[in-house]
Amino acid sequence: MAQINPTMGDIVGNTELIREYCKKAQEAKADLVIFPEMAVTGYPPNDLLPPHEVRPPAGNRKPDQEPFLRDNKQSLTDLAHQVNGITTIVGFVDYDETHLYNSAAVTHNGKVSSVIHKTLLPTYDVFDELRYFTPAQSNLPATIQIRGQEIKLGTSICEDIWDEEIGYGIKVVDNLCSRGAQIIVNLNASPFHDKIREVRLRILRKKANRLHVPIFYVNMVGGQDELVFDGESLAIDAVGRIIAVGRQFEEDLILTELTIPDSEPSKEMTFPSYHREKEMFNALVLGVRDYFRKTGFRQSFIGLSGGIDSSLVAAVAYRALGKENVTGVSMPSQFSSEHSKEDAQTLATKLGIKFISIPIEPIFTAFEGQLEPQFKGYPFDVADENLQSRIRGSVLMALSNKLGGLVLATGNKTELALGYSTLYGDMSGGLEVIGDVSKTEVYELARYFNESAGSSAIPERCFKKVPSAELRPDQFDPFDYSVVSPLVDEVIENRLSRSELIQRGYDKALVENTLDRIKNAEYKRRQAPPTIKITKKAFGLGWKMPIVNQFTG
Amino acid sequence: MAQINPTMGDIVGNTELIREYCKKAQEAKADLVIFPEMAVTGYPPNDLLPPHEVRPPAGNRKPDQEPFLRDNKQSLTDLAHQVNGITTIVGFVDYDETHLYNSAAVTHNGKVSSVIHKTLLPTYDVFDELRYFTPAQSNLPATIQIRGQEIKLGTSICEDIWDEEIGYGIKVVDNLCSRGAQIIVNLNASPFHDKIREVRLRILRKKANRLHVPIFYVNMVGGQDELVFDGESLAIDAVGRIIAVGRQFEEDLILTELTIPDSEPSKEMTFPSYHREKEMFNALVLGVRDYFRKTGFRQSFIGLSGGIDSSLVAAVAYRALGKENVTGVSMPSQFSSEHSKEDAQTLATKLGIKFISIPIEPIFTAFEGQLEPQFKGYPFDVADENLQSRIRGSVLMALSNKLGGLVLATGNKTELALGYSTLYGDMSGGLEVIGDVSKTEVYELARYFNESAGSSAIPERCFKKVPSAELRPDQFDPFDYSVVSPLVDEVIENRLSRSELIQRGYDKALVENTLDRIKNAEYKRRQAPPTIKITKKAFGLGWKMPIVNQFTG
Repeated sequence: MAQINPTMGDIVGNTELIREYCKKAQEAKADLVIFPEMAVTGYPPNDLLPPHEVRPPAGNRKPDQEPFLRDNKQSLTDLAHQVNGITTIVGFVDYDETHLYNSAAVTHNGKVSSVIHKTLLPTYDVFDELRYFTPAQSNLPATIQIRGQEIKLGTSICEDIWDEEIGYGIKVVDNLCSRGAQIIVNLNASPFHDKIREVRLRILRKKANRLHVPIFYVNMVGGQDELVFDGESLAIDAVGRIIAVGRQFEEDLILTELTIPDSEPSKEMTFPSYHREKEMFNALVLGVRDYFRKTGFRQSFIGLSGGIDSSLVAAVAYRALGKENVTGVSMPSQFSSEHSKEDAQTLATKLGIKFISIPIEPIFTAFEGQLEPQFKGYPFDVADENLQSRIRGSVLMALSNKLGGLVLATGNKTELALGYSTLYGDMSGGLEVIGDVSKTEVYELARYFNESAGSSAIPERCFKKVPSAELRPDQFDPFDYSVVSPLVDEVIENRLSRSELIQRGYDKALVENTLDRIKNAEYKRRQAPPTIKITKKAFGLGWKMPIVNQFTG
Repeated sequence: MAQINPTMGDIVGNTELIREYCKKAQEAKADLVIFPEMAVTGYPPNDLLPPHEVRPPAGNRKPDQEPFLRDNKQSLTDLAHQVNGITTIVGFVDYDETHLYNSAAVTHNGKVSSVIHKTLLPTYDVFDELRYFTPAQSNLPATIQIRGQEIKLGTSICEDIWDEEIGYGIKVVDNLCSRGAQIIVNLNASPFHDKIREVRLRILRKKANRLHVPIFYVNMVGGQDELVFDGESLAIDAVGRIIAVGRQFEEDLILTELTIPDSEPSKEMTFPSYHREKEMFNALVLGVRDYFRKTGFRQSFIGLSGGIDSSLVAAVAYRALGKENVTGVSMPSQFSSEHSKEDAQTLATKLGIKFISIPIEPIFTAFEGQLEPQFKGYPFDVADENLQSRIRGSVLMALSNKLGGLVLATGNKTELALGYSTLYGDMSGGLEVIGDVSKTEVYELARYFNESAGSSAIPERCFKKVPSAELRPDQFDPFDYSVVSPLVDEVIENRLSRSELIQRGYDKALVENTLDRIKNAEYKRRQAPPTIKITKKAFGLGWKMPIVNQFTG
């Protein structure tokens, strides 16, 4: 199982990567090497694929007129010619005159010996496959020769193995087995979230055991916009035991030996256990690292307020990019406390990242001066508060424009949900690193970082002080995060309604205020930077809520 | 045909509106009144509907636990009880234990007498229906009693009538006719684009004529986020002639008389002809007006640069909101020309909108002063240019925060495509009013406005001067828009590839530069305000392009 990290659209580079892994597999005397779903193109290509409305008969663009499709198919064919002496299964996008398919090719003896199409096309959360693909009608196992033995290989793609979990009527893997498949291969581009490992293992074990068939589950690894593919490919034997596990969040070539039919029980391997915080932190690290690497950026700029959120973002960036590629920017105003300035400085010093301080008071004064004819007679309010945040956003963007680099935004999921953040202010940046991390989890991940680094880089004071945006004197966040952070998760991740939340004991006024805030902040989230998804429901691609919305539930 | 303008999620208000129109129809002695698709909820509710992954068997949220679904069904049932003496057909969301349906209810004699589900579920461009809905397996005509006569009524929903155009295998309307339907009703929430009227008419005529059946096509009207529903409901007789046409962009109750079977030929009506510019302008007006009305905002703030783009946005806002609700804000810098300042002022005076001027030089100087330790040794570049744009964005946001209102952004589609705009600068606002209007069309719409208003509110100089962002001395936009504007449209709307564009005679270097710019600006567009869609392919909801993307085509 070649658990590779392709780059979206880099068809030449991805094919080269596939060839390299074929070579490695051959050197390791493997007979068969399996690659992830859409390994040739990267996943998900979305509108790099021609949508239905432009293809015949609705439109007049034949798939073959699309360079993206043509190049991907040509690369697959070339690959088949070049790789000899090993059987490969490679994910790519197949097509005919009018339809596209999410496909896997079996290549053998210098040619593509068979192609299967994905049957179950997920169209929920971050997945949009029915927007592009036509489902397979039926698939047969491919017969391949391995060491003189004829093997019937049943190939399936990602969702095809989730029939029972998601409740599809078609049982793809069962059908392959009833048609004689002796091995099931499952090609994946399955994004990480904090609860998915155990689900995948359960599904694979159950299916292998029930169908008495070994299953090779190969997953993509790497970051793509909001998504992080976590790898951890799995091989399960015909009684449901783990016989191989790939690394999490890293490329890997996982070698497994299998006798067919199974003569003696394989030795079961242990499923690694990870701390939840470790997994989440590492997912963010890979998400940030790949976003920079795959777009060609190196330097990052982070506004350091001395609070826990920006401290965690700096820690993630430090781990993802290296200390030489992170600049912490302190932007104190007349409302900034001494401890904030100190804590930002301490963090930067302990991490060894670059640190600069740009006081914003003169800029704020200049704004207020120019706005005075309009503002006079009005009290100091959210307009003046947001202005400070927007000055800071502009300073960060100016630094990144001038010195080269990307700004990392520092808003957490709880704030984004509640709209407690400033559009074009602290929401500025190329990535919203912790936009899928609740306030409660921010503390946990920050704690994990300090512990794992054996340091106190994130100052202890950051964990203890009352959260404050420091945009006016004695301002503190108007939330009890120990209550509101899990409450928001119940709404976003579990879709609990007002009455259900009240039934569970949440205060009625708090529930109503929270639901209102979530609804009214939709316009801000629509303009938020991409958020790295690490829970089962993140804002961004998988959250499609109207802005104009008068439903008060 | 009751061509109404419901508000997303305002189930109580929408049901009240439906009742009002039932009353009007009864007063006009109508026997049957037909409402648009999802009239009860508004369209498209997107994730206000529970997505697949949270519903059984994948999740544990039964549709009946969702207040949005429950309220919509309850309102529909209540409506059926309350409306008597007239048969109605009303669009709503039906559901059972696990599935949701895009549905139409026939109500008659105080109850829901039948419900049909939509069969063809569009999942392309701005449509995501397979994310939520299960298609109907088969629908029968409903038998209703009208004036003592039994009529077989075939009900279809929107896409159901587009089978031939889009190339679906299932022929919904044909099937209804072969099962005896004497009238076809088609409930729509069909968004406007600049080429859709003629297509709709052609489809309806062809189908009516071929199946020898009258078709009642009722369309929603109103703005919802990016979408504008244009109304213009149509009744077509059994030989394909127009017998009724609703107003464009306004609510309407369209009365038609029909004898079944058709005893004498109806009198054909003329299909109104509109200027393309008039339609596009009016679509923007309705999009802006409804966004404000449906979110409860009144006041708008627009940065007036003296250029054609912001002038057009001001003209749209003036028409949509009234002059008392528009404030033009001039924000000159040391790089602003005299003619820019004059033209902004002239426009405001002629429109009669409020006008304020806030010079930004002192703010820019303060920024540059604070940034000096980082910027010294670097030349004046895009960082300093963007900074001015971001100062203007912050001034506008500060005014809207302090005085109450929404900022309207002023970027056009060509700029958004090319990335020739500043994130958090001129891209700031609640709506990107002309984000789907190409630079060429901006001039045409501005000309249309002046002509239709019989004025020269948009100064003649705006049409003639060389476009400039005026962010440094003697800066002019680095594009020949007469070439680049249509080139961009070929890429975005028609998906032409590099080699196709070169074949059509575009300069190779220009094509490559343009395609690169489009690709590299994706990160900006992901954070752009919602853009009112008026072409067949707008940025926003219907444009799902990855940000990390190394495909160079």
